[in-house]
Amino acid sequence: MAALPLINSERLREHHFCLAAIGATARGGIDRQALTDADTEARGLVVSWAKRRGFALSCDAIGNLFIRRAGVSEGEAAVATGSHLDSQPGGGNFDGVYGVLAGLEVLESLEDAGVATRRPVEVAIWTNEEGSRFSPTTMGSGVYSGAYPLARALESTDGQGVSVAAALGRMRQRLPPCPSRPLGVAPHVYVEAHIEQGPVLEAMGATIGVVTGIQGLRQYRVNVIGREAHAGTTPLRVRSDAFVAARRIAAEAEALATTEGDEARFTIGRFEVLPGTPNTVPGKVTMTIDLRHPDEAALDRIETAVQHLCSTCAAPCVASMETTLAAPPVHFSETITHVVKEVAESLGFRTKAMISGATHDAGFVSRLCPAGMIFIPCRAGVSHNAEEHAEWADMFAGARVLASVLLRLADANEISPPEQTAPAKELK
Amino acid sequence: MAALPLINSERLREHHFCLAAIGATARGGIDRQALTDADTEARGLVVSWAKRRGFALSCDAIGNLFIRRAGVSEGEAAVATGSHLDSQPGGGNFDGVYGVLAGLEVLESLEDAGVATRRPVEVAIWTNEEGSRFSPTTMGSGVYSGAYPLARALESTDGQGVSVAAALGRMRQRLPPCPSRPLGVAPHVYVEAHIEQGPVLEAMGATIGVVTGIQGLRQYRVNVIGREAHAGTTPLRVRSDAFVAARRIAAEAEALATTEGDEARFTIGRFEVLPGTPNTVPGKVTMTIDLRHPDEAALDRIETAVQHLCSTCAAPCVASMETTLAAPPVHFSETITHVVKEVAESLGFRTKAMISGATHDAGFVSRLCPAGMIFIPCRAGVSHNAEEHAEWADMFAGARVLASVLLRLADANEISPPEQTAPAKELK
Repeated sequence: MAALPLINSERLREHHFCLAAIGATARGGIDRQALTDADTEARGLVVSWAKRRGFALSCDAIGNLFIRRAGVSEGEAAVATGSHLDSQPGGGNFDGVYGVLAGLEVLESLEDAGVATRRPVEVAIWTNEEGSRFSPTTMGSGVYSGAYPLARALESTDGQGVSVAAALGRMRQRLPPCPSRPLGVAPHVYVEAHIEQGPVLEAMGATIGVVTGIQGLRQYRVNVIGREAHAGTTPLRVRSDAFVAARRIAAEAEALATTEGDEARFTIGRFEVLPGTPNTVPGKVTMTIDLRHPDEAALDRIETAVQHLCSTCAAPCVASMETTLAAPPVHFSETITHVVKEVAESLGFRTKAMISGATHDAGFVSRLCPAGMIFIPCRAGVSHNAEEHAEWADMFAGARVLASVLLRLADANEISPPEQTAPAKELK
Repeated sequence: MAALPLINSERLREHHFCLAAIGATARGGIDRQALTDADTEARGLVVSWAKRRGFALSCDAIGNLFIRRAGVSEGEAAVATGSHLDSQPGGGNFDGVYGVLAGLEVLESLEDAGVATRRPVEVAIWTNEEGSRFSPTTMGSGVYSGAYPLARALESTDGQGVSVAAALGRMRQRLPPCPSRPLGVAPHVYVEAHIEQGPVLEAMGATIGVVTGIQGLRQYRVNVIGREAHAGTTPLRVRSDAFVAARRIAAEAEALATTEGDEARFTIGRFEVLPGTPNTVPGKVTMTIDLRHPDEAALDRIETAVQHLCSTCAAPCVASMETTLAAPPVHFSETITHVVKEVAESLGFRTKAMISGATHDAGFVSRLCPAGMIFIPCRAGVSHNAEEHAEWADMFAGARVLASVLLRLADANEISPPEQTAPAKELK
């Protein structure tokens, strides 16, 4: 296998810096939450680059954007890649954007080299992967794959009461018109490039992570209802302090999660206390729990135990828990992981097979077609943080592997069908 | 001692309902935070009632408003009462407003009965007692008594960045012009009526609380700095999770406070988690601690221990703690408490000597003149809550006691000087 196509590392670097300026924060990261003006501006820039090269654009009902380089055999399903341009409010310059730019770089390099592929090659920009402004996460790929109902996604609102439908409308007004395409069209295969967002590759001295699957994710909302009271007059023993009950539940739930081993990830990222004045005993707390584990049975055990905690540990307050997201563990196509490993090693890169700790759009797309991911190292595993960082050499390496993998798959005849995955659970 | 002056219970009830409509919430309470339009409207209504009776009005530089019924000997210092009209965001209909209306009722009843007092009788409406919109609490009486610098109070801003100076300017524009008066003019005596905001009087079957002092109050702001990280990829053992560190400090600090006995009051009322998204490990928490105890030495011990906690218990995060308010325990004038007890019992009411758990404007005014307070019961001790409730009979009883106490003090010749109190600590 030749090392072709050679990607243009200067162009990739230039595109990276152009996007890093959109939504830039004083801390050196970005705040480019889904469907904001900054997210819209970033899309507009990528669209302008795609148009310059004559690539076809299309957009679906949840705002996913597709950039397509035609194949010789246009009737065949596309070989696809992609990721997302939205970020956490305190996000970095690599999460998501790297996969989009690496994908665009593959298309441009194929064009530069005049390579004709049998199948079309497509780059997807998925809407609202982060889920920080609108719940849930991976909304765009979830709707596209049929795991989330479109109508419910469009009704989701941000903290100011703005709906996804309204924010999408605003974005569409500000971008050039784009042909629409239906949801759910299955690519031939999907391979997403992404920074690892964890410390494994760096620690192992490996350049390419061959991602075999994604750990399962569940998100919950816990409401604790107490009774507001005067901080100066109400003895501690007669209080129904929602803060005290919530922090107790938080501590015990985390302790429970850790009994399922080092692989368990337990995070309370949002914790809102009402009324929130220094001299009033809190009457209400709303907190989120983000729980992850590669083993579905372990997730079930922790969930049951935390549910039990809510009913036994909140007194004299009352706690309730609802599931807001339940994504089962994903197992990627063995055919794809085999190709990624083989290509990366033929290019001279050290590889490491691994399970992704983070959720990715590739998880939902794997319900439609054989899918996989290519990870590159990120410094100290730091992500969702302004200090998120990847080395240029690793970014170029990942783009080269992606290019060769897509090229090989675009000309291959057969690929095994997607593995059966469990259906998405009902969401609230 | 005669039971004169008889207060007009119908008028007091009517005034109560008129004010309960201003800033009314769906839950049956009020949201009338300091210097808002609702607070301004409430003041405007009380001003109109005062003007109708020909009482003199004056206003100082921090917006405290004084309603004065002239005495025979106008050169002498006034016998004063009062309280506040502002509320917590989820406040009730009795906290503060009762003391203002009971005071106004005394002035009107004296007028109705044609009673001439030697000294003037005054009702003060103190600005921003609650401190929920602008920090610190008891701002108006604190500035008036010289405990807080005026300039610093005027610079205090709310969550939207509006300063006290700007909000005061807006309020003045919307009320009729009012003659100004200097800060710090000492009344002859000050007696404030208030709901207990605790369960003691109701539990004892007493109608009048003879308040001998106010427990000490300290408020702190604790900042915990961790490191934002991805919730899915970052193993628990390598996280610097600001939420986890803050909840641990909160739990241990509360346990420490309770070692100082049942009288300790420890409240975490505000707890802000950043960036506040479900799938990011929190990088920062800011929380408030409200700590109260009748014994200054106990406050010192708890403060030292919590400071120690912040330096030892936050790792791998870093916690810092600053004092935002330090009000030492207050001991009211024995002369005043003696008069209150004697008057209440002569009117046939059961009394109970008690220390106030809540901070009140009377605490700061006690630095200028002999001061005291009259408590009436409130249902189940609930306050800072829409369900706050006092019985009509108790409200009338308290107003009758207040009227007789003020009448006796307005004609008395001598009163002992204020006890020495510790100076206010430096505030941040």
